[in-house]
Amino acid sequence: MNDLILDIAGSGKVAHHLAKRFADQGVRVRYVISRRPEDSQFFASSIDATSIGYDEIPEDDLPLIIAVSDDAIASVGQSIPRERKVAHTSGTAALDQLSHENSGVFYPLQSFSDSREPNWDDVPLCIEANNIEWEQELIELAEYLSSNVQRIDSDQRKHLHVAAVVVNNFTNHLFHQAEQYLEDHDLTLDLLRPLIQETIAKSSEMSAFEAQTGPALRNDEKTLDSHLDMLEEYPELKDIYVLISNSIIKSYER
Amino acid sequence: MNDLILDIAGSGKVAHHLAKRFADQGVRVRYVISRRPEDSQFFASSIDATSIGYDEIPEDDLPLIIAVSDDAIASVGQSIPRERKVAHTSGTAALDQLSHENSGVFYPLQSFSDSREPNWDDVPLCIEANNIEWEQELIELAEYLSSNVQRIDSDQRKHLHVAAVVVNNFTNHLFHQAEQYLEDHDLTLDLLRPLIQETIAKSSEMSAFEAQTGPALRNDEKTLDSHLDMLEEYPELKDIYVLISNSIIKSYER
Repeated sequence: MNDLILDIAGSGKVAHHLAKRFADQGVRVRYVISRRPEDSQFFASSIDATSIGYDEIPEDDLPLIIAVSDDAIASVGQSIPRERKVAHTSGTAALDQLSHENSGVFYPLQSFSDSREPNWDDVPLCIEANNIEWEQELIELAEYLSSNVQRIDSDQRKHLHVAAVVVNNFTNHLFHQAEQYLEDHDLTLDLLRPLIQETIAKSSEMSAFEAQTGPALRNDEKTLDSHLDMLEEYPELKDIYVLISNSIIKSYER
Repeated sequence: MNDLILDIAGSGKVAHHLAKRFADQGVRVRYVISRRPEDSQFFASSIDATSIGYDEIPEDDLPLIIAVSDDAIASVGQSIPRERKVAHTSGTAALDQLSHENSGVFYPLQSFSDSREPNWDDVPLCIEANNIEWEQELIELAEYLSSNVQRIDSDQRKHLHVAAVVVNNFTNHLFHQAEQYLEDHDLTLDLLRPLIQETIAKSSEMSAFEAQTGPALRNDEKTLDSHLDMLEEYPELKDIYVLISNSIIKSYER
């Protein structure tokens, strides 16, 4: 245990994962702040914190991490005493959503689930602040959680978030589409897991451009046509198949 | 070393990876057969095999694995003595591309690279044959290479291949698009690797449908619109963004 103390506002996945990780790493979480403090009592006591409402926030100068939904950041910010040093955890909201003298961003670039503990050591923590002292303090806090702490400004963070949607949500949607298609044919996605693992492993050894294989890369019209025939009853997957195959073909024509 | 012996036809990545793995696992590769045997001599001797041409194939009844491109399977098959037991390694070609008395399929469901050794223990080997004895023999051979041996008929194999293109080639293309976008903004895909790993890890613990997160899932129009604005100069990625986001929105409306 060191002498670092902070408060966390929010009652969702990000707030809980962050609070738990801080507590596990010896940073004391004093208050868990939420709209309905009675609902957060059980969680708060599990990390030796106290659950309070927004009207009970003390007027000291300890750090307060605001882990609430993007839409709520500005209004939550307004209900926090001016002397508090604040940082939100959003991938998309700009730094200027907060107007405290010490305002910052503390964005963990990861997809959190209720049921899974992330591999915190790797999680990029993207830090930004409106002054160098608060930024430095946020970096030090972040280093308790992860060895992957990055200074990222609001503009870069927006670009990162677009790319994160592409590689996470869109990849996951491809898996969902493939999973449904396979189940309809008495097969499971498990058969493709070694291939998926290899796709990821390759992408860290060479550029994705070099790693590409498959019928679109070869512009193998026979295979592409036969695949489209098989997708006749899967109009959404078929549209995706056509668009991405054409995009692959174009990328390698250049 | 056991007393299993076979020949392998082909001079590409699949032929070389298979031959090397057989040799490493104590199955003797006698001949590596190719159109230009002088070009395969170095590789063949590295696994104690002999490089020969298609006109030199002995008329015995040993297994012969045909690891050539889809288009060449039928013609290569015709140049192989009738008494040989044959199997091709294609994910798409049907079993009946071969017309030997003992014909089969020995399909390793993996994306092979020149520079990377696959994690063979996991690689699904999809086996099919036109008679039960040859199928059993192929299964036994496959079990020397991997602990993930599957009986998959030609129809299922075609469906698997479509899904493999989606989860491998298309995912890789999303990585490529994200990589380019990030590089243009002085960022790298490395920042997103922990997120990518988490996406994959989640997909083996729950269905991809349940694992989904992000602005399209929430139908968060403000974020979606701001992302499309940022992709103004990336027409291909923008088209992909629109199509997949709409497909996600539709999937969760139902």
